[in-house]
Amino acid sequence: MTSLLHLDSSHSDHSVSRYLTGLFAREWRRLHGDGGYRYRDLAAEPVPLVTATYCSFAQRVERRGTLPLTTVTAMAESPSEEREWAGTLPLIEEVLDADTLLIGLPMYNYTVPASLKAWIDRITFPGAFKDSRTGESLLRDARAVVVAARGGGYGPGSPKEAFDFQTPYMRMYLEGLGIAGENVHIVHAEMTRASDVPELAEFQDMAARSLAEAEERVTHLPALLAPREPAVR
Amino acid sequence: MTSLLHLDSSHSDHSVSRYLTGLFAREWRRLHGDGGYRYRDLAAEPVPLVTATYCSFAQRVERRGTLPLTTVTAMAESPSEEREWAGTLPLIEEVLDADTLLIGLPMYNYTVPASLKAWIDRITFPGAFKDSRTGESLLRDARAVVVAARGGGYGPGSPKEAFDFQTPYMRMYLEGLGIAGENVHIVHAEMTRASDVPELAEFQDMAARSLAEAEERVTHLPALLAPREPAVR
Repeated sequence: MTSLLHLDSSHSDHSVSRYLTGLFAREWRRLHGDGGYRYRDLAAEPVPLVTATYCSFAQRVERRGTLPLTTVTAMAESPSEEREWAGTLPLIEEVLDADTLLIGLPMYNYTVPASLKAWIDRITFPGAFKDSRTGESLLRDARAVVVAARGGGYGPGSPKEAFDFQTPYMRMYLEGLGIAGENVHIVHAEMTRASDVPELAEFQDMAARSLAEAEERVTHLPALLAPREPAVR
Repeated sequence: MTSLLHLDSSHSDHSVSRYLTGLFAREWRRLHGDGGYRYRDLAAEPVPLVTATYCSFAQRVERRGTLPLTTVTAMAESPSEEREWAGTLPLIEEVLDADTLLIGLPMYNYTVPASLKAWIDRITFPGAFKDSRTGESLLRDARAVVVAARGGGYGPGSPKEAFDFQTPYMRMYLEGLGIAGENVHIVHAEMTRASDVPELAEFQDMAARSLAEAEERVTHLPALLAPREPAVR
């Protein structure tokens, strides 16, 4: 059975990223059923910021090298370390268990929203996504679908291309986590504020075209992502 | 009287960014006294994530153009909008009131920590840092000192330079907020984990040199930042 972890991070009631991840998820569930579907709303139920305890525990683990998660669990030395790890391990396992990661990613101030960054800062625990015996990525066969909405236009060749710290960052982060570059699919919806912000009014056609292309892509992508073999860990 | 807003965002008990902003602040207070000094710990007292109410309020304000903050205050239409704005306005005023912004910025997963991003996402309210009559920046004479610590090496020419989404982002964001490029000072402390992570052990000399240079810079910078005229608003 294939599995999908669906994350949303927008705080807006009129979120384009949520609308598009919703289309993807609907099609995915039509194809694969609900059994492997998992949803997490990072805006409605924020992941707590990491703490000094989290940092010192992570650093103690990192000094030991790449360890199996069960060994990490056994290394917690205090109730506060146990609490931090208990709030982290399920988030990590959710990612390890997913064949596909679907990330709703609005651009907030040129990059990822704090809601998503809090999740990133917590799940990125030393060694958690590596095979402790070989050091290889446990996510090498995983796929990520990133639905990147942005109020303005930041596409290739646009004047604001250099201000895009959203999708280049997200691709780099996901590849760093161990997902193969060819398995990271980024869907853009540009100029999402064009019908709303007076200075962007002239870009309404561009916005409509970009949204239509994104709708088409998120509707067709689920069928193109073949089930993968579960990672051995 | 000159003023300093000192922000820290690291969660670590052995934070290099906190150590260095502390040196800067100590020297600044030796020169200027405590009267204009303001401290905010974004890790110990996190700024709450923005909400759907915040987003819809900000978008309603943005559609009206650049407004004085008093007009924005009067536009809150519900208790929840008033609450959101009451949690935002003091953070904005703190920035407007500061001649110098001092930001302790550790690299977390190649970019700014969620703690700082939560502050960015909340203070970056439409029009808040512009003169509503002229549209010009209210921060054009402000200075920012960013103390960027990173566990590895990301300096110019290093193999991981392209992975630095911390300082290029922060510079772009601060300039976008209206601070002149020549007034953004970035102090780097590279390889802060060299004495700690086995694979970085060979870089301990580089780390010590980088730290010594950063110590020197943060100690000398306060005297170089002349008081500015207060912004008229």
